[in-house]
Amino acid sequence: MANQEDNLFKNVISHAKEYGFIFPSSEIYDGLSAVYDYGQNGAELKNNIKEYWWKFMTLLHDNIVGIDAAIFMHPTTWKASGHVDAFNDPMVDNKDSKKRYRADVLVEDAIAKMEEKIDKEVEKAAKRFGESFDAAMFKSTNPRVLEYQKKIDETNARLKDAMSNGDMAGMKQLIIDLEITDPVSGTKNWTDVRQFNLMFSTEIGSLAEDASKIYLRPETAQGIFVNFLNVQKTGRMKIPFGIAQIGKAFRNEIVARQFIFRMREFEQMEMQFFVKPGEEMKWYEFWKEKRLKWHLALGLGNDNYRYHDHLNLAHYANAACDIQFNFPMGFKELEGIHSRTDFDLKSHEKYSGKKLQYFDPEDTQNFIPYVVETSVGLDRCFLGILSKSYQEEKLEDGSDRVVLRIPAPLAPNKVAILPLTKKDGLPEKAQAIMNDLKYDLRCFYEEKDAIGKRYRRQDAIGTPYCITIDHQTLEDDTVTIRDRDSMKQERVRIADVRSKLIDACSINNLLRKI
Amino acid sequence: MANQEDNLFKNVISHAKEYGFIFPSSEIYDGLSAVYDYGQNGAELKNNIKEYWWKFMTLLHDNIVGIDAAIFMHPTTWKASGHVDAFNDPMVDNKDSKKRYRADVLVEDAIAKMEEKIDKEVEKAAKRFGESFDAAMFKSTNPRVLEYQKKIDETNARLKDAMSNGDMAGMKQLIIDLEITDPVSGTKNWTDVRQFNLMFSTEIGSLAEDASKIYLRPETAQGIFVNFLNVQKTGRMKIPFGIAQIGKAFRNEIVARQFIFRMREFEQMEMQFFVKPGEEMKWYEFWKEKRLKWHLALGLGNDNYRYHDHLNLAHYANAACDIQFNFPMGFKELEGIHSRTDFDLKSHEKYSGKKLQYFDPEDTQNFIPYVVETSVGLDRCFLGILSKSYQEEKLEDGSDRVVLRIPAPLAPNKVAILPLTKKDGLPEKAQAIMNDLKYDLRCFYEEKDAIGKRYRRQDAIGTPYCITIDHQTLEDDTVTIRDRDSMKQERVRIADVRSKLIDACSINNLLRKI
Repeated sequence: MANQEDNLFKNVISHAKEYGFIFPSSEIYDGLSAVYDYGQNGAELKNNIKEYWWKFMTLLHDNIVGIDAAIFMHPTTWKASGHVDAFNDPMVDNKDSKKRYRADVLVEDAIAKMEEKIDKEVEKAAKRFGESFDAAMFKSTNPRVLEYQKKIDETNARLKDAMSNGDMAGMKQLIIDLEITDPVSGTKNWTDVRQFNLMFSTEIGSLAEDASKIYLRPETAQGIFVNFLNVQKTGRMKIPFGIAQIGKAFRNEIVARQFIFRMREFEQMEMQFFVKPGEEMKWYEFWKEKRLKWHLALGLGNDNYRYHDHLNLAHYANAACDIQFNFPMGFKELEGIHSRTDFDLKSHEKYSGKKLQYFDPEDTQNFIPYVVETSVGLDRCFLGILSKSYQEEKLEDGSDRVVLRIPAPLAPNKVAILPLTKKDGLPEKAQAIMNDLKYDLRCFYEEKDAIGKRYRRQDAIGTPYCITIDHQTLEDDTVTIRDRDSMKQERVRIADVRSKLIDACSINNLLRKI
Repeated sequence: MANQEDNLFKNVISHAKEYGFIFPSSEIYDGLSAVYDYGQNGAELKNNIKEYWWKFMTLLHDNIVGIDAAIFMHPTTWKASGHVDAFNDPMVDNKDSKKRYRADVLVEDAIAKMEEKIDKEVEKAAKRFGESFDAAMFKSTNPRVLEYQKKIDETNARLKDAMSNGDMAGMKQLIIDLEITDPVSGTKNWTDVRQFNLMFSTEIGSLAEDASKIYLRPETAQGIFVNFLNVQKTGRMKIPFGIAQIGKAFRNEIVARQFIFRMREFEQMEMQFFVKPGEEMKWYEFWKEKRLKWHLALGLGNDNYRYHDHLNLAHYANAACDIQFNFPMGFKELEGIHSRTDFDLKSHEKYSGKKLQYFDPEDTQNFIPYVVETSVGLDRCFLGILSKSYQEEKLEDGSDRVVLRIPAPLAPNKVAILPLTKKDGLPEKAQAIMNDLKYDLRCFYEEKDAIGKRYRRQDAIGTPYCITIDHQTLEDDTVTIRDRDSMKQERVRIADVRSKLIDACSINNLLRKI
């Protein structure tokens, strides 16, 4: 099973490259680690996801507006947010392999191995006892399982303790006590565990004495917080209201991996919702539900999403959960919904000396609003859609096809315009149809190769509809429309094509259904 | 006149802040020099400009596709492009004021002063001679004018020489010979002139011995060049074809100024068009014309645009021109159209060792394509539109209004939905109308304050239409539509509102007219 999933992931990655969705960055220079470029089809899919999110947030909710803050911010921003002091990962090197690891990931991997051992004990016992086997009972009584479970609980507690106190010596001791070995060298020869700050820094300004160290933002949220009052006042916003933003963020991950799932340069779609203190849990629940609906409306399968509540809350949160998605490597975080309290605005007040309070005209009081955040990874959305859309099919005639069942409103092209042959005026007729459709439905024109081959190529880039212009078209102004998913063809009048396809392909229409 | 323009510029800047178009970055921390954030109205206007450009490029031209490459690229990219060695500005400090200047700008300012002197001589003579005065004759014979002109020509020649050879001693000598004084200290006490590289750098990777210095891209073009073959092959593109991209770029300007005209973080909309060698001049002319049409279609006034041919060509170009726009500070570059030859692809071949050639199926030959580039500053487009849209008007009743006559398809909101009063069911009726319109026409809802005041606020953010819901609406299902520019009101049936407004507000429709 794990192998099948590995293979699927590999196939998705190579398909993404072969069909112009994602290229390794600067590939002619052998790439840049954990950075990727979006190709001609990827850029369109990404833009469509952005539009779907932006319109959902700002069009469907009167009280949400969008902004576009710069990547560069005043460096004190990151003092106030806690990133300068605390945005660290614990890293440890194996002295023999010279490989670097995240210490907490090594410990988590060790815990996962212990959990696997429990699963194996349970499996063995299940086979032995047959139908009468009661797994819960077995787990709560079997001495070996109980011993593993005790060790797991202890390790989790120590890990949580060391991480929240920044106790790097404690992390090292955990690695020693768990007898963790480096998968590369096979040895336990570890350096001390050290904190590594994940922000990228650079120097701005040209005067040597004047140049300041600034950071590439590691999250877009702070661009919203520092603009909170500007937006509230100039937009005359009344609480509750939200500010939405899409933009790049940067993290110098120690170990970046899993394709575009964890990149050093990535894009977030974040919304901060400002509420009255005390009402945050209501809105937290509201946004948990709303955001899940947004994902489900894509139709990738409700079973592929689940909530995951955070047990260890970040210092700024009083409630937090993830929406996880069933990626090729298993269920992982796709979006976070966090009740951030007044932590950020309060901290910016402290560091800037400026009041960041809302004046409530009803009870004529000033207060610092509480914040509920929804933060979704644009690249992760992309990966989720791409990997679930990717399907290898065996057809009735024995041949294979790869089809990307991308939700039509997000597909890079909506319609392929295919004259059956390159002569007899079919290309000209096809161009005329395209000129009429292209503003409302993004078209892709192709006249080379046999029609079956062209259909396959459109399947592979996820084009929901192919319009074929043949000799009958010249006679009666009809074309065939081929459906990507069913591969069925239907003959329709040219005049009806637009109205027939536009509903299925429209982001606005998708939004209307939420 | 200069003062009036200064005032206009100041008014535009403060209007942009007051109405949520542009805020100084991290303003609560007193801002970050030459970095700005787009507010709730600015973000929408900016998105609309992007959409207008992207659709024009990729929808109206079958042979252009878009990509979205990362800001981070392999550092060798910038060796190959020449930026590591030559992307410098000459800088010089005044030792007394401690102020830093661009040496070439100081020299250009000195030249401008000499030109002013000539203008004054001409003016004086014109007054003296009256109607019979022949300015051209005067300039070609008057000894004082001839002397100035000779000095201007000499200075221009020396400046060009020093800049193209990177001769910093020559630059210093020019400053000395021209007896340039610092406007702040008034002294001629200058340091040597030094080269200053404008790229921002940072370190990627966590291993001390492994971390590499990378750059924030100073232009988006190279992301297209390194992906040239990936796009061509996976997209089966045939020459001539283009690759378009919108994205952030970063330059550590020595002296950044003029609001969002020259920022350290800015956004470009670039397209590289790959052609057969020898055909580049044809395509250069083609794109000069096409791009101007794109600008003119906005209807800001044809007189506000002009071509400006480059006399001093960059090392990579065999033809280049700007489309200049009449900004509040005068005609300045808005877009560049450059015939870049095969400089970039050739250089990337050399540095990467990878072939970057196109195989021409017709004459079965490989060649490195020539490139024609169109590169427009997104922020400059924004500034041009904002400043030309901004108008202070005296109305018939003696009152004043500020109106932003933003082209309707680009306006942040298309329609304001205004119930005349807050009671009698008018807000509910208004909301129902809005729910029907909002997917196709971005709406802004407001029920507070007198209707006249609300109209003024919509004028100030450039909303082309206000829909007022009054008591008659409840009786006969009609509303009034108020036009921003003419301020005329018209009573229409609710059922007709959409079709009445959608054409004027649609980017697709704007594109159809080009």
